[in-house]
Amino acid sequence: MKHTEKGKEKNIMDYDTVWPGEGGDAVMIIDQTKLPGTIETIALKTAEEIWEAIYLLKVRGAPAIGVTAAYGISVLAGRIQTEDYDTFLLEVQKQKEYLDSARPTAVNLSWALNRMLCVVKDSAEKPVEEIKKTLAAEAARIQEEDIRVCRKIGEYGLSLLKPGDGILTHCNAGKLAASRYGTATAPIYLGEERGYHFRVYADETRPLLQGARLTAFELQAAGVDVTLICDNMSASVMQKGWVDAVFVGCDRVAANGDTANKIGTSVVAAVAGCYGVPVYVCAPTATIDMETATGAGIRIEERPAEEVTEMWYENRMAPPGINVYNPAFDVTDHTQIAGIVTEYGVARAPYTESLKEIFARKERIDR
Amino acid sequence: MKHTEKGKEKNIMDYDTVWPGEGGDAVMIIDQTKLPGTIETIALKTAEEIWEAIYLLKVRGAPAIGVTAAYGISVLAGRIQTEDYDTFLLEVQKQKEYLDSARPTAVNLSWALNRMLCVVKDSAEKPVEEIKKTLAAEAARIQEEDIRVCRKIGEYGLSLLKPGDGILTHCNAGKLAASRYGTATAPIYLGEERGYHFRVYADETRPLLQGARLTAFELQAAGVDVTLICDNMSASVMQKGWVDAVFVGCDRVAANGDTANKIGTSVVAAVAGCYGVPVYVCAPTATIDMETATGAGIRIEERPAEEVTEMWYENRMAPPGINVYNPAFDVTDHTQIAGIVTEYGVARAPYTESLKEIFARKERIDR
Repeated sequence: MKHTEKGKEKNIMDYDTVWPGEGGDAVMIIDQTKLPGTIETIALKTAEEIWEAIYLLKVRGAPAIGVTAAYGISVLAGRIQTEDYDTFLLEVQKQKEYLDSARPTAVNLSWALNRMLCVVKDSAEKPVEEIKKTLAAEAARIQEEDIRVCRKIGEYGLSLLKPGDGILTHCNAGKLAASRYGTATAPIYLGEERGYHFRVYADETRPLLQGARLTAFELQAAGVDVTLICDNMSASVMQKGWVDAVFVGCDRVAANGDTANKIGTSVVAAVAGCYGVPVYVCAPTATIDMETATGAGIRIEERPAEEVTEMWYENRMAPPGINVYNPAFDVTDHTQIAGIVTEYGVARAPYTESLKEIFARKERIDR
Repeated sequence: MKHTEKGKEKNIMDYDTVWPGEGGDAVMIIDQTKLPGTIETIALKTAEEIWEAIYLLKVRGAPAIGVTAAYGISVLAGRIQTEDYDTFLLEVQKQKEYLDSARPTAVNLSWALNRMLCVVKDSAEKPVEEIKKTLAAEAARIQEEDIRVCRKIGEYGLSLLKPGDGILTHCNAGKLAASRYGTATAPIYLGEERGYHFRVYADETRPLLQGARLTAFELQAAGVDVTLICDNMSASVMQKGWVDAVFVGCDRVAANGDTANKIGTSVVAAVAGCYGVPVYVCAPTATIDMETATGAGIRIEERPAEEVTEMWYENRMAPPGINVYNPAFDVTDHTQIAGIVTEYGVARAPYTESLKEIFARKERIDR
């Protein structure tokens, strides 16, 4: 599927989701709220622009938010006019806290911001100009790692599938949510490269329609066999035996395997449970929060009523003044998850143990 | 909630959903595709107009479709220019088959049409002009019965609830889908009259948004405490313990209790099963099809892709050319249903027996 932008035919697969602006004075993103109609690139230059792009989901998806925030700190730090280390640290800390407040649920945002702050803290003896360069390098490293991590998740995810399988996915944990392969889509893209010919069912994912606007869009652009369904059709496709596995991303995994992901994931998991379909959560270790014991400890962002009643529509679709409950995420119980696919392997129940083993493996390999 | 129509303030609760036009030359309906923005009355005069109003969901909901078809046959029969019985019968039969083809899943459509045809068949010895009057009276009787049936369902449904309960409902089985009390909403309206103060959660019900546009609208207009959620938020509200029971309508119940209802009902049932919330199906006996053994025998209507990708939106929300699967109904397995609430009492599992008992009771009482 080709899209026209300024007279040229463009394919979304030719773009990165996030990248550094030339000269390091901006974070560049595709404005995802304009997809699939228009591929529009925007340059985020100020802290407010970066915060707003994350809050308004112009850039979204846990890994992509992390990468954006990392480049964001690099851009903002680069502009701090001081040679004094303490002033510099204080200012970076302020920007970090500000960006961190854009969205509460995805752990990658604070994970990436903390990593950037650590660079500053570990560089007390260096001149400020050098720290700025180190920050730019660290942001690029976070993104490069994300690419490698997604590919690894793709390999482990693919080991759970066979050619011709039907895969249901919810929201967008694709290249638009992460780097290159995406997380939940990584096995799909890798499988496509290797002739697996999966049939993918993409939940449209109300109210922000990331499944219709982004997942269906990018998979179609990549030539994958994808069918769009409404969120309330998952039981129908599973009753027909069309779905062999559910693959979803996540915004935060607790130490016991409870998983916060886009609203509706726990609905899909309940339905999958009824029809004996395994649910796999694709989780870079950066998304696993061992400090949070269970899903009950994960703060769930609630968003404005207008996203449900007015957004995207020609006319409002519910009476004025109606009460709306609009949580952006839900928590899927660990008992409903068949496996958590990380870049260090697939964790299985009991997750309290297997996730610890994943981190132990990570430490052994990284050392 | 008041709405302005031609300068006057109007409340949807002051309207019938379907009613006969003066002089019997039209079926009058509220155009439900214009709700909640505009309360617009339309007069259906030709067979094509009636067929289209049903196909395009200007009037929808199994009982309301039945009533519309009954008045429709009366209007169309009234216009047949003959005094010859056989010609008259043949013509009515033709109109009946045409209207019956508008939507396949709801049994009430063919149920009401058959009942109208029986009137003609049972009147072979009467003059055609008299049969026309009998048809008008029969259509009115079908609607009056629907009002009584809904009220009865309300009483039986209310016996399953206690004051302050949280009720989740899907699609619209309200006054806009039936006569006066609706089916799934009947216990809610009756409870409201008796100070039960229920908290109702209305699924928006993609793609046609009957929950947002109709259920939230009519319950709000009636002063009921109603909160709109997206279809993928049912697990969230159940996890929080906000829902004590699910009440839904139905389009066709098979002899074993398997229930075809608006797409997403079986998703709600799967989620409710996970969280121990009972699911009650409100079913006038006219909706119970003892000729169909199981849900596998119910034909599920599939509708155009545009309802998912374009309808209601300012811009299309999925890439052009995307595959879409858009079934209008799904089948909820009888094992997921705690009770089927009819006008003759609540049937419980095993439904193969209890539904027979319901019909036996109906026969005893009606005799």
